[in-house]
This record gives sequence, structure tokens and C-alpha cells, in this order.
Amino acid sequence: MTRQRDAQRFRTVGDGSGLAASDSFYPEEIQLALRNRGMPLEALRYSLTPTGMHFLLIHFDIPEVDAGKWQLKIGGLVANPVNLTLEDIKQRPSQTLAVTMECAGNGRALMNPRPLSQPWLLEAVGTAEWTGTPLRGILEEAGIAPNAVEILFTGLDQGVQGNEVQYYQRSLSIDEATRDEMLLAYEMNGEALQPQHGYPLRLIVPGWYGMTSVKWLDRIEAIAKPFDGYQMSATYRFSQTKNDPGEPVTLIRVRALMSPPGIPDFMTRTRLVEPGPVSITGRAWAGRQQVAGVEVSTDGGSTWDQASLDVRGDEPVDGPVSPFAWRPWSFQWDARPGRYILLVRATDSQGNVQPVSQPWNFQGMGNNIAQRVEVLVE
Amino acid sequence: MTRQRDAQRFRTVGDGSGLAASDSFYPEEIQLALRNRGMPLEALRYSLTPTGMHFLLIHFDIPEVDAGKWQLKIGGLVANPVNLTLEDIKQRPSQTLAVTMECAGNGRALMNPRPLSQPWLLEAVGTAEWTGTPLRGILEEAGIAPNAVEILFTGLDQGVQGNEVQYYQRSLSIDEATRDEMLLAYEMNGEALQPQHGYPLRLIVPGWYGMTSVKWLDRIEAIAKPFDGYQMSATYRFSQTKNDPGEPVTLIRVRALMSPPGIPDFMTRTRLVEPGPVSITGRAWAGRQQVAGVEVSTDGGSTWDQASLDVRGDEPVDGPVSPFAWRPWSFQWDARPGRYILLVRATDSQGNVQPVSQPWNFQGMGNNIAQRVEVLVE
Repeated sequence: MTRQRDAQRFRTVGDGSGLAASDSFYPEEIQLALRNRGMPLEALRYSLTPTGMHFLLIHFDIPEVDAGKWQLKIGGLVANPVNLTLEDIKQRPSQTLAVTMECAGNGRALMNPRPLSQPWLLEAVGTAEWTGTPLRGILEEAGIAPNAVEILFTGLDQGVQGNEVQYYQRSLSIDEATRDEMLLAYEMNGEALQPQHGYPLRLIVPGWYGMTSVKWLDRIEAIAKPFDGYQMSATYRFSQTKNDPGEPVTLIRVRALMSPPGIPDFMTRTRLVEPGPVSITGRAWAGRQQVAGVEVSTDGGSTWDQASLDVRGDEPVDGPVSPFAWRPWSFQWDARPGRYILLVRATDSQGNVQPVSQPWNFQGMGNNIAQRVEVLVE
Repeated sequence: MTRQRDAQRFRTVGDGSGLAASDSFYPEEIQLALRNRGMPLEALRYSLTPTGMHFLLIHFDIPEVDAGKWQLKIGGLVANPVNLTLEDIKQRPSQTLAVTMECAGNGRALMNPRPLSQPWLLEAVGTAEWTGTPLRGILEEAGIAPNAVEILFTGLDQGVQGNEVQYYQRSLSIDEATRDEMLLAYEMNGEALQPQHGYPLRLIVPGWYGMTSVKWLDRIEAIAKPFDGYQMSATYRFSQTKNDPGEPVTLIRVRALMSPPGIPDFMTRTRLVEPGPVSITGRAWAGRQQVAGVEVSTDGGSTWDQASLDVRGDEPVDGPVSPFAWRPWSFQWDARPGRYILLVRATDSQGNVQPVSQPWNFQGMGNNIAQRVEVLVE
């Protein structure tokens, strides 16, 4: 692989990526793309994403928190309101859980027409081991009043969105908030949270898209009616028009991603692969469901073959490290010279399968379209 | 700050940011922006950038390295070629140095017309504490032959650029390579390098733009003539046209950045500030020089006032933590209602001052134009 390449072959983004060479992006989008951080897809090789490669979506600014002065306030419709220090929280029962987290906007930039917001392609994902105390125990001790219907989580990050000055806020039903797996996490991958991941404390809601895992928690309140703040009612909706309320975005949909094989062209990211046997590997996840199967197409989606689960290359590997973590898969491809569009799609335990063309929605939410990777074999 | 905002005020990117609302970006650029990672500018509050917020520019893919099998090869025109394991390197004398690193392409997207590559605005920077062994000791033991003129560094990351299949390679003159501060680093901020920062070993070249700090080192060779590989001769040049060889990009130019004050609008990143006294804070750096002064303009660049060095708000703080690390500065602003363009510029110890309009170059290198931040005070 030391010979010169044909200049034509790497000149533009091919439609293999799902982008068209004629697409253009707004300055607002580039500003967001440079602040928020995707996981380079070669990091699919790690069952736990190194902290500095996990995706990051930060609506406003990363707040500066003095953990010595910080307290988590538990209040609203509870019998025993309480303020807890970080030490108080660390002295409670602890639990560690590996969770695959994905941004609800992942895949947004592949929709056409493209909804205007953070322009993710497919990289807004990561899996980390979160350590914290179960939320349920805290809620039980606080004593949720019978007339409460939701738990509201407020972060310390403040900004303007939709012309409304706001702290970032999301709510969960009491049934959801009291599930076993909900955590108030103070560690990520065995270390104190980094500021950008929610230091000193964040909510972790396994199985849900990431917007619900509120970072930089300030307070938790039991409330008497469903919360209709901006991040619940104006965004994170499957809407068809600006004024369509649509349905709320909740659980992560099934998805598989591959590590693009071979080596990349710097500018176009088209892949160059040597002829011969190629192990195509990746991971798949399904929110609260399990991954039932993964299929690969090497002919642009005309035909599909089953990939092997819990294998990497020829080697069996451990399956998902938790019920909420992604699952490794592998597919052996005999690559012959030519140009290919590789696709991968997964099916979950309820029979949901990733679409090859995505139903559009106004905010670009929950796009789990099958990944396309353009490859030159030569 | 709980009232509704005027919709018009946050509708588009203002020219305050240095971007024009009419700018549009290519899909190649958005792909690169989503892979590479900028430091959110509020992270200027940290003298050492948390590892997961440090900027990242990765030309090809992050390679997978088995550190148990990896060896650093020292060869070429040396008396004593040797292969060193990571343990061998860790047993050598160690040094820890805080270094402000900046991408040579930082500011590229603010040039007009915009050179096509990773479209950085101003966020391609970070300061970390690197621990490793001085390069000079290794070169001395290897015994550089009298006819050698450069030291060539080769990484394990492979890809295609300019239609050429290549491993990432950069060279330094022997005078540069044997300076006191050059390190072969295996730790960043007190922990083993993360894969994306060059695990298991990277070169750290304090004072130079980041392209020279080769990650994932595979070999170091003394060579008989200046290296003319792709990353030396085809890119990282101050050129005026595609075929102008221009001058090589080397040392980091003086620059100050501010943490944008107030709170952001999600989409446009315009800042909303409450009237009254505002501490504008940030950091400045100057490559191999020192920062001599920092000036702030609150009227779009018509008038400039001196900021205070080694101060944050009203509080004196430590100066730069090393001769190669950024220096904190602060400016007190009495913000009255209105719309403002804030600017900041620094001057180095040789009298170089940041420009307010940047001389253009073909590759968009070394743009140290003064930062502009659009602010609404109300």
C-alpha cells in the first residue's frame, strides 16, 4: 500500500457515507459540531469507550462547580426534603453499571431536508461504566407524596434556547424514575466525573437517549403534573412540523455500527481496503431491548448476510458487559477489487429492525438508519 | 434572567463571531469537525485542561496498539540502533512539563476564502501536563552520526492524504530535537496516555504547533537530508497558492482567548450578559516566547485597554505553570445594556501582536487573528 492513489477517487464525499457532495452546512451547525464531540468510529473496538472519546452534547456551557459548596437538593412533593453533599451521596449504597448512551439527535445530518441543530452523522454514542447510588433509594427516603406524578431533574447549566432563558431540565414518570437501573453517578470509568460529563453528579438513565441523563445536577423535585418545560415540550419530540407537538423521544432505538475497515482518506474519509479476507467488526445496541441479530450488506443493501455476535474477527469475545451495553459483532468479507457500499443493520428482541431509508421528522430525532460506508478495494 | 427573549436577537450567527451568516460548509468539513475535537472555550478556566476536553486532531484513524508487543525503534544514522519497550522507556529519567498545544490550523474557518480542511474556529488548543523521558538522552545514547541533519519521527497511524498512502511522519532539525524540553511522553495529566492522545508513546515538542508532536510513535531515525515527506513538503506550509512551496509552519504564534462571558444561546452561541460589573477572563500563550501583555476591546476594536495578567476576576492567581504553558488574564468590564463585539489580543516578548484582520494563506495555517465575541447586555 505504498503506491500513489488516483486523485479522482478521493476528490469528494461519496454518497456512500449517506451525505451528498452537494450538501452544505450552516455556520450555526459548524459551531455546534466544533463544541460537541463525537466518538471516532474506530473506538467501537473498545467495549468501554475511553472517557475522552465518549460523545458529548452540551446544550449551554459546562458550568464551574465547587464540589465543596455544592449540594443536591431533594424537594418538591416529598415528606422529607433534604440537601445532600457529595460525601453524603458517596456514603450511600453504590452500584456500577456499563451503559451505552446515544444522543437522540444521532443521525440528524443524514436526514433530508436536514433539521437544523447539532449535525451529527453517526458518532454520537459511547459506552461507559458509571458508578453512583441508585436513585430509587434516595426517592424512597425522601418519601414521594401520593399526588406526585413525575420527578423533575434540574442541571446547573444555563442558557437560552427557543428564546427562553432556562436551566436544563428534564422529567421522568415516577415509574421510570424508580426503576432499578437509574443512577446518580459520581464516577465514570472508575474516576471522578470530568467536568464535561457532569461533575460532580449526573443522572444516568440506561436505555433512554442521552438528553434524559441530566448533567451537573442541582435539584430533584417530585411534582404534581407532567413537566412541560422547553426540553420536554418544545424539543425532543417526533414532530412533522414546527407546531406539531408529536410524541416524546424516549428509549434508544436499535442500531449497529461498524468500525470502517481499512485506512481512511484524510479529506473524504473514504476507506481504502486491500483485497483479501477482511474482518468487519462493530457493536450493536437496542436501548432497553436486547440485540437479536446483526446483518451486513456488501452490495449497497441489495442482499444481507448474518454477522456473528460476540465475536471479533475469528475470536470469540465477551458479550455485552451489562444489559444496557452494546454487543460486539463481526463479519468476514472476502474483499475483491472494486468500489463498495457496506451497510450494517441490527434487529432487536422485539423484532424492530433498522431502516435503510429513514422516516423523516422535523427535529431530526431518533434516526437509526443503517450505516453506509464507502470502500475502495485495490 | 427568566423572561422571554426577543426571537430576532438569536436568529443567526452574527458577524461578531468572525463567521458570516451566509457562510456555508462542505460535507468534508463537517465530517472532519465531527471526528476532531475542540476545547469548549469555557475550559479556559482550567490551568490544565481536563484530558477529555483537550483538542484533538487525528489525521487518519486512532491505531490499535498492543503495548506489550510495541517497541520504539531508534535507528537510521546512529552508532547504536536500539529497540525500546515501554518499560525500558519508563525506567529512564523522567520529566513532567505543562505544555500549551495548539493546532496549526486553529482559526482556519475564519479565513476568507476559507481553505478546505478541518474547519477550526478558535477551539483547537489545550494545556496538559506531559510526563516522559527527554528525547535528548535517547538520541545521545544512540549516537547521532556526523552526517545526520534531521531526526524523523514516524507514527503508527496510516491513511491517504494528497492521494498518497502514508504513515504520519514529521522531522525536526538535530538542534531542535536535542533541546531540553523535547519529551517522549507516556503520561498526560498524571495518567497513561489515552489512545486518542498517542498511546503508548508520543513526541511532545513544546512551543511548536501540534503537528510536530507525533502520536503513536513507531520509530525515530537520524537521516542524512531534510525529510520531504507529505506532512513536511505538501502541507503545514505558509503558501499563497496550491503550488507555492511557501515557508514551513513551525512555532506557535502569540494568542489570547477569553471564556465567552454570560450564558450562550444554544443555536447561535451569541452571549447574553446581565448589566453590571463583568469579569472577562481567559488565557494567553506565545509558543517559545512569553506573553508580554493582553488587551481587550469592548467596542469592536476601536479602542483597547490593558487586561491584568496572572489575575482571575479580582483574585491574583498563579501565572503560567511552565514556560510553555498559557498565562491567565482578566479584565473588569462595566457592562451597560446594548450589543457589543468584544475582542482580545496578546503581545509576546518579542513585540509580536495578534492581528485584527489576518493575512490570508492557502492552507489556512497559523491564523492568530484576535478573537471576537458577540454579546447582548440586557
